[in-house]
This record gives sequence, structure tokens and C-alpha cells, in this order.
Amino acid sequence: MKNIVILGSTGSIGTQTLDVIRNSKDFNVLGLTCNNNLDLLIKQIDEFKPKVIAVKDENNAKELKNILNNTGVEILSGEKGICDVAEYHDAELVVVAIEGIAGLMPAYKAIKAKKNIMLANKECLVTGGKIITELAKKNKVKILPIDSEHNAIFQCLQGNEKKYISKLIITASGGPFRGKTKEELKFVTMEQALKHPNWKMGKKITIDSATLMNKGFEVIEAKWLFDVPLNKIEVLVHPQSIIHSMVEYIDGCIIAEMATTDMRIPIQYALNYPERKAVKGVKSLDFEVFNTLTFEKPDLETFKCLSLAYQAIEEGGTMTTVLNTADEVAVSLFLEKRIKFLDIPKIIEKSMEKHDNIINPDINDIIEVDHSIRKSILDEYMR
Amino acid sequence: MKNIVILGSTGSIGTQTLDVIRNSKDFNVLGLTCNNNLDLLIKQIDEFKPKVIAVKDENNAKELKNILNNTGVEILSGEKGICDVAEYHDAELVVVAIEGIAGLMPAYKAIKAKKNIMLANKECLVTGGKIITELAKKNKVKILPIDSEHNAIFQCLQGNEKKYISKLIITASGGPFRGKTKEELKFVTMEQALKHPNWKMGKKITIDSATLMNKGFEVIEAKWLFDVPLNKIEVLVHPQSIIHSMVEYIDGCIIAEMATTDMRIPIQYALNYPERKAVKGVKSLDFEVFNTLTFEKPDLETFKCLSLAYQAIEEGGTMTTVLNTADEVAVSLFLEKRIKFLDIPKIIEKSMEKHDNIINPDINDIIEVDHSIRKSILDEYMR
Repeated sequence: MKNIVILGSTGSIGTQTLDVIRNSKDFNVLGLTCNNNLDLLIKQIDEFKPKVIAVKDENNAKELKNILNNTGVEILSGEKGICDVAEYHDAELVVVAIEGIAGLMPAYKAIKAKKNIMLANKECLVTGGKIITELAKKNKVKILPIDSEHNAIFQCLQGNEKKYISKLIITASGGPFRGKTKEELKFVTMEQALKHPNWKMGKKITIDSATLMNKGFEVIEAKWLFDVPLNKIEVLVHPQSIIHSMVEYIDGCIIAEMATTDMRIPIQYALNYPERKAVKGVKSLDFEVFNTLTFEKPDLETFKCLSLAYQAIEEGGTMTTVLNTADEVAVSLFLEKRIKFLDIPKIIEKSMEKHDNIINPDINDIIEVDHSIRKSILDEYMR
Repeated sequence: MKNIVILGSTGSIGTQTLDVIRNSKDFNVLGLTCNNNLDLLIKQIDEFKPKVIAVKDENNAKELKNILNNTGVEILSGEKGICDVAEYHDAELVVVAIEGIAGLMPAYKAIKAKKNIMLANKECLVTGGKIITELAKKNKVKILPIDSEHNAIFQCLQGNEKKYISKLIITASGGPFRGKTKEELKFVTMEQALKHPNWKMGKKITIDSATLMNKGFEVIEAKWLFDVPLNKIEVLVHPQSIIHSMVEYIDGCIIAEMATTDMRIPIQYALNYPERKAVKGVKSLDFEVFNTLTFEKPDLETFKCLSLAYQAIEEGGTMTTVLNTADEVAVSLFLEKRIKFLDIPKIIEKSMEKHDNIINPDINDIIEVDHSIRKSILDEYMR
């Protein structure tokens, strides 16, 4: 039995992780945290009987204490409470499924406390990649990626030494606007942008898929996770999302990982690594259905966000935090119909141009840059 | 420096192996053998300076002794001579690139003498799979497959335990007659059958690709090489021959290996395993060229040879030798335009029906069955 903590247990990755754990006898759920979905959290507490939980809001914590009176569950609150669960003494594996930059500090604390982590949160590596990966290396902590692309690369690297990598090939569906021209993108709506062809995901990541920024984040994450230089990381558009990513080796061999688009597969893999377990309810890939796989180069000219991501990681430091925060705010403005689709890259580019880069930031620098960029964009657009 | 012996050095795989070795500083060519291409063998001796060589024919050996007078090369002849090179005392790695059942005994001797082998010859495992793999296991000998499908599976298994295999998926180009009906196959010519869409290979294997018998042999080889039951080995038609084969694991993940259709890639991999080395002159796979990969089920009804192969390995014993020999003779008759394309499976099926199966044959039983099947078909068709 492995003691596991799930940070962000009521979100998409959190609930799917619990779904996999429900069908396994190998895990003891020690801790859960969530933002504000109390109803679901209570159900999860009832089913999985954690020793400790944390919620962001103090009033929510008080409400929970009343409801869970006499159950013996330790109830914590605030960012500090969530970090306490992340570094909880008996925890062996911490699933970081919190969305946004709020995931950075708990992940940092978990790694500092020498817990292996399963990483679904993108911001940890996009904003704090250097700090997080250096600390993990120092503390001999495994970072097991859950998102399908990095999980695929992780699988393709098994049994192969890193020195033989020629390049990482991150596949991209291309999103709902693949093949569109810049002129056509001027008029796309929020509703169109939210129609992802293959994956069901949250709104933010779906828009990031439409702009290709999601792929930009993945390039940055891959650089840190696999310690591969940027010029060896390629994005390849593959509309069917069946090949989740690939590794090309110096001898010309490409190893690829494929599966149906079901997040429980990478979650199960990371949970049981280096073992493999069957996933209840998951179907085999049927080549009679997926009988045609296609590939094309991404259009970096039209989908500017991907170029901006390459530029940000090239510059390093807090520039990737600017990229991340400006994108997050711009996407939320787009979802509120305050800006147009093509304003997203414009806002990001402007924020990057104005930013005075901090080359070797600590965690607090990153969080401060996040706050100031967020404030500055909102000040301009919410007047 | 690794001491290497190449059995069948003047054939397609032999010359390509030497081509890879030519660009490496890691190998010392200790021995070469060939059937009767003396001119090429002499050039190879001149370039690679082996200590020992063997040719099949005694008169050829005498001629060589005259030509190579005073060079100090030890010259052997006959099947015994070739086996002596296979088990040569200083040899560490033996490349078995002899065509046909003639490869069986030298491979057996090499494994008996505890040499690791690189296997290109199909007949070793198709006819003697049980004996060869049991001996290799007992003697802790590595069998490194060179043909692209098994080499791909071997790569896809790296870093993964065998117990997690859900199935092996062997890809097949489908050959030049993919999609044709049985009625259309009645009238195909030798010239049409020799036009393989993707690979340049010898005539025998090209015809075997057209009948799908080649894939049948590969299923049998995979069963022995990877010790996987027959119901976990599938054939999938993939006309572009870019994915060389795949392994599906119990968690629904499929690991696939892709590369251009250049035999030097798997040869290089097997030569350097578990290391990887760049292959001079080999191109990266270009997804702008290979931008569409398709898959379809093989038509077992029309391409009867594949069904016959499944049937033969199901029955085991010397039945796969009958399959192999009957196919070899039938293909040679087809190449001599003595029979039609659809007579190939008919001849094989008839031979299998008549055969009194020996369930646990020794090497000599296999060689005797080969002789008797060969004689019986030729007696009938060469009258």
C-alpha cells in the first residue's frame, strides 16, 4: 500500500486519479485538497477516508469542520494548509493536480520534503522549471508526468539512455483552428475555440490548444523534465491525437507511444511506474477505427503563441512566468468576451516586451512576477 | 573491439552489415563465409582481413587457396567449414545472414559454443525455433533480431517487463497485391509479384511478401523470440512500412518503432545493443514526406499463406518445417514460371496435410523433413 496525497482532488485529473485508485488495492489515500467544490470533496472523504484534507478558503474549512465533526479527519485551510498536506509526513507520492500557478508552492514543498510527485500542473515547470527540477535532482525525487505528451515521452525513454536522444517530438492535435489563416482567425468566437476535436478538457486548456500555447507550455515542460536542449524539441501536428509523442534516437529509430485519448491511461502508468496495470474501462486502440494517422508542420506564423513560448524559454528566467500569466489572464478575458482571439498573443507579446527579466529567480520572485503581470493586464483591460 | 563473424557475408544483409562495420571502430571482422560469390568475398577479405573464411564448395575453396596464397587467411569449406567459422574460438558475435535452412546448423553451433548471435535468417526460428531458443536460454546467449519487425518489437520491449505484454502487433506492407481479390490473384505474373512497394529485397522474400507468407514466418519467429503465445501475436497491414512493429501493453499503451526502410538501422542497433550509434548515410524519418500512415486488417481468406502459417505453428513440431520448405520450393517453381501464384498456398497446404508430424524433433529430424518435402514436391512438379 502506497500512501498517496492528491492536491486538487475535485478537478478533472483529481477525480480521474481517484477513479483509477478506486479500482486498485495498492493505494491508501492519505490526503486530499481542493479549491471550493465542497460537495464533491465530502463525497471523496466519505469514500476514501483520508487522514488530512485542506481547502483554500477558511470559511469553507469551518463549514467542513461542522459537517465532518467526530470523523477524526484533520482539516486544514489556506495556501499554508495545502502545502502542509503536500509535505504530510507519511505521504510517499503526491499528485499535483491543482490548476494554475497555485500548484507551484505545494509542488515545491512536496519535493523539498522528498516526496515523489505525479505532475499534472503545467505552471510548476513553465514558471519554476529550473528550481523544481534542480531540487528534485538534489533530493532524488521522481517527477512522473501525467499529461499525455510527457507521459508518452517518459515511456519512450524507458530502457534508453538520454545521451542517445536526437530529438523529442511532441505531437499536437492542432486544435479546432488547424489550417485556418490569420485572416480567418480574426473572426473566431469563444464557442468555436472551445470545441476541441479530440480531448475533453477544462476551458483554459482548450483555448490554449486552440492558440497552440498549450504546446508551447509543453515544449518548456519537456525541456525541464527531460533535460533536453530546446533545439532538440519539435512540435508535430497530428490531428488524430493517437500518437501522444515520440523520441527520435541518434540511429534514426523513433519510439512512439499511442493510446486512446483517455487520461486514466497516463495516470495509471504514473501511479504504478515502473509496473504496468490494466485500467478498468479503458479500451484497446482499435486500428480499424483509427486507420489513418496524419502529420503536418505547425504554422508558427499564424499561431504566434507557440513562437512566443520558444522565445520565452530561450530567454529563460521569469520570462516564462510572464508568458504563463499573460496567457492565463488573456484567456480569461477572451472567455469573458472582452478581447478577440488574436488579442491573446498580442497581450502576451506586449507583456514580454515590457518585462525586465530576472534570470535566476527564486520561488518568491516568480510569484511576485505573476502578481504584477496579472495586475498590470487587468488594470489595462478591466477599466 | 568486438570479434565478429559474418555467415553469408556476400548477401544483402551480409554486405549491409559490413557497410555499417566499415564506419565503426568497434568491430574486428574475424570470420566470413559465403556460398559462391568469390569475387566479392575476395574484396571483403582484402578490406576486412579476417582470420578465417569458409565457402560452401570445395573447388571454390581450392581456387581461393591459390589466390590468397601467403596471406595467412585460414580457408575452410563445406557445411562443416561454415559451422567451424560459426563456433570459431575467439568469436563473440555471430551474424547469421545465410539464406534458407542452410543457416540452421551454423546458428545452432554458434549458440552451442555460447556466441551471441545477430539473426537475419528466418528458417532458424521457423523450423528450429524451440531447439534454438531453448539452447540460447540454457547457454545465456542473446539472440538479436535484425529483420525490421522483430528488431522493432525488441526495441519496444526495452525497459518493459514481458509479463505486461498484451499483444505484439507485427506490421505488414501487404505487398504488391494488397486489396486484390482471389479472382484477381489467379492471373498475376511473376513480374508483378516481384514489385515490392517499399523494400528492396531478394526474390524469394519478395514473393513471400506478396503471398503474406513472409508475415506468417515472422509470426512464428516472434512466438519463439519473445516467448509470447500465438493468440497474442497480430498482423496489421500498414502499407507505408514506417511503423516497423508495435507492442501493446496491458494498460492500453502501445509502443511503436518507426524508421525509414533502411536495413542498416536495425543492423546498427543489433551490432551496438544496448548502445545506440548514428548510422552513416541514414536519413531521419521526414514526417512531411511520410505524412499519412494507414492501417487495415489482413485478408486471411485471400492470402491463404498467412493462415497456413498460424495453423503450422499451432500444430508445432516439424509442421513449420514443412510450411517453410514447401513454400521455398513452391516459390522457386513460381519464379521458374512452372506454377501459378495461387498454386503456392495449394502446394504448401497439400504438403502439410500429408505430413506425419514429429512433435519434438531434433535438428537432424528437421533437416531430414526438409529434404523429404523438397524431394517430394520436386518429384511431382519437375517431371
